[in-house]
Amino acid sequence: VSVALPRGSRLLLTGATGFLGRHILERAKDCGAEVFATCRNPPAKSGGVRWIAADLLHPEACHGLIAEARPTHLIHSAWIATPGVFWASPANADWLTAGIALLKAFGDYGGQRFVGVGTCAEYDWSGEVFAEDRTPALPTTPYGKAKAAMASATDAFAARYGFSFAWGRVFLPYGPGDAPERLVPTLLRGLLKGEDIKLSEGTQVRDFLYAPDGADLIVRLAASAELGVFNVGTGVGSSVRAVAERLAQAVGRSDLLRFGALPARAGEPDTLVADMEKVARLVRWKPLHSLDQGLEATVAAFRT
Amino acid sequence: VSVALPRGSRLLLTGATGFLGRHILERAKDCGAEVFATCRNPPAKSGGVRWIAADLLHPEACHGLIAEARPTHLIHSAWIATPGVFWASPANADWLTAGIALLKAFGDYGGQRFVGVGTCAEYDWSGEVFAEDRTPALPTTPYGKAKAAMASATDAFAARYGFSFAWGRVFLPYGPGDAPERLVPTLLRGLLKGEDIKLSEGTQVRDFLYAPDGADLIVRLAASAELGVFNVGTGVGSSVRAVAERLAQAVGRSDLLRFGALPARAGEPDTLVADMEKVARLVRWKPLHSLDQGLEATVAAFRT
Repeated sequence: VSVALPRGSRLLLTGATGFLGRHILERAKDCGAEVFATCRNPPAKSGGVRWIAADLLHPEACHGLIAEARPTHLIHSAWIATPGVFWASPANADWLTAGIALLKAFGDYGGQRFVGVGTCAEYDWSGEVFAEDRTPALPTTPYGKAKAAMASATDAFAARYGFSFAWGRVFLPYGPGDAPERLVPTLLRGLLKGEDIKLSEGTQVRDFLYAPDGADLIVRLAASAELGVFNVGTGVGSSVRAVAERLAQAVGRSDLLRFGALPARAGEPDTLVADMEKVARLVRWKPLHSLDQGLEATVAAFRT
Repeated sequence: VSVALPRGSRLLLTGATGFLGRHILERAKDCGAEVFATCRNPPAKSGGVRWIAADLLHPEACHGLIAEARPTHLIHSAWIATPGVFWASPANADWLTAGIALLKAFGDYGGQRFVGVGTCAEYDWSGEVFAEDRTPALPTTPYGKAKAAMASATDAFAARYGFSFAWGRVFLPYGPGDAPERLVPTLLRGLLKGEDIKLSEGTQVRDFLYAPDGADLIVRLAASAELGVFNVGTGVGSSVRAVAERLAQAVGRSDLLRFGALPARAGEPDTLVADMEKVARLVRWKPLHSLDQGLEATVAAFRT
């Protein structure tokens, strides 16, 4: 299904070489806008996109970037995402400072629509429902706190400058291009090597999101005029166990899974599944891939 | 009841000439810390406080202020508060930017405890309970949005630098020094002049807070080690009608009140009363004055 931004739109994407960022960039290419992409070290091949090199952690860089791209639409996906590090990194506060410099520059240059990439870690995880306007934001990690602050700052700057915004709270993306340290690539690598895979009981239920679907929703949010926070998930919960079993089946090695060999991680909720009612109602969006379809495509990409 | 900060503490107060700020400054003078106060134009009389002139809306000013005062404790009360203007002013986003510069400088110079002055306008007003960790922050005004963003940013920077923080959400302060345009001074001025006072039905219920009591709680939060958001209110709801009647009685002019002569204001909640359970449990604080006592003291101060 096509998404069209108004004629003459200039869409800038930050974090365009990140995991989700690459999928957003692919999805954005045929949205009708002139597409600008930024990262510290742009790739040699432009891929039909205008790349601008910028290190957003230098706040002057934000101003320079906006002055050059003059975006009408901005998708802000850049943030620290290093596996194992990002949850507690002091860089989270630096990314918040950078984000605010970006909001200010976007407003100063007449930007119209801002979409921020947030996280389910902004929510109070002690409840069972994760709904945008009913579940308090009570993050417990530096990552969640800084993202929640950026969400609130986005709302404040949108009110200051009169631009519109959406803030997407992303659940658990997986898919081609995922970092090797994360769940699905770790499992697939072990399974394909024929190694025993040690897991917890795997009973925790998560909202696994095929990354190209998440990217589709984020670009749709950029094309929409709806305001506020929107979950970026599927609304369907699957256990970690089910994901591992599906991957093991796909490569024919269900014999390798050792559930219960590791203890459960402390401090993680049993269930973390997006309430997608608001997105369905206001954005009229549904995921394009089931978990089985998404995992199948991920396995195929991993093998090539 | 005395409040003691650790020996050798340096307490900096911003917005020290504001309505609530002046009461906080009075309350802070005997807390055992060396007290620094800042505003754009310090008063000629120091009043036993070290004044530092600074315009925080110039972000470099935040760094210079912290470098000079080297506070261990910071109460950040400065913000736009011009009656009738502050709700929608674009300056709210500028105060957010300033606040973040202040948080960064405070962390860089080894600050230990930060207390921010927030607002009940950060809450979702559509509910009936206003509890710190259960009621979502869903502000609808530029003022509420920027304060909510500052609350989240404070949490993020505290995590970044390892300082502790409390964020006080202030309900409806009244008392000596209140701006002439606000409810209580407007009523008192009219009553003392013998003018007819036109009011709505006055059925809306609010948490009216005697400002010196609010200041007491804020200084206590600075002396505490408890983390997170705390309501600054009384937990007792009173109707606007009851406040007007009490003031009219105090000056012997109950004949002047004309309830129903004005329409109710749109967009305001029927009830806005702080849930004070968390403060009672963790800070062991209760208001020092009843509404009658606070209004009586306010009338006395107004007449002098």
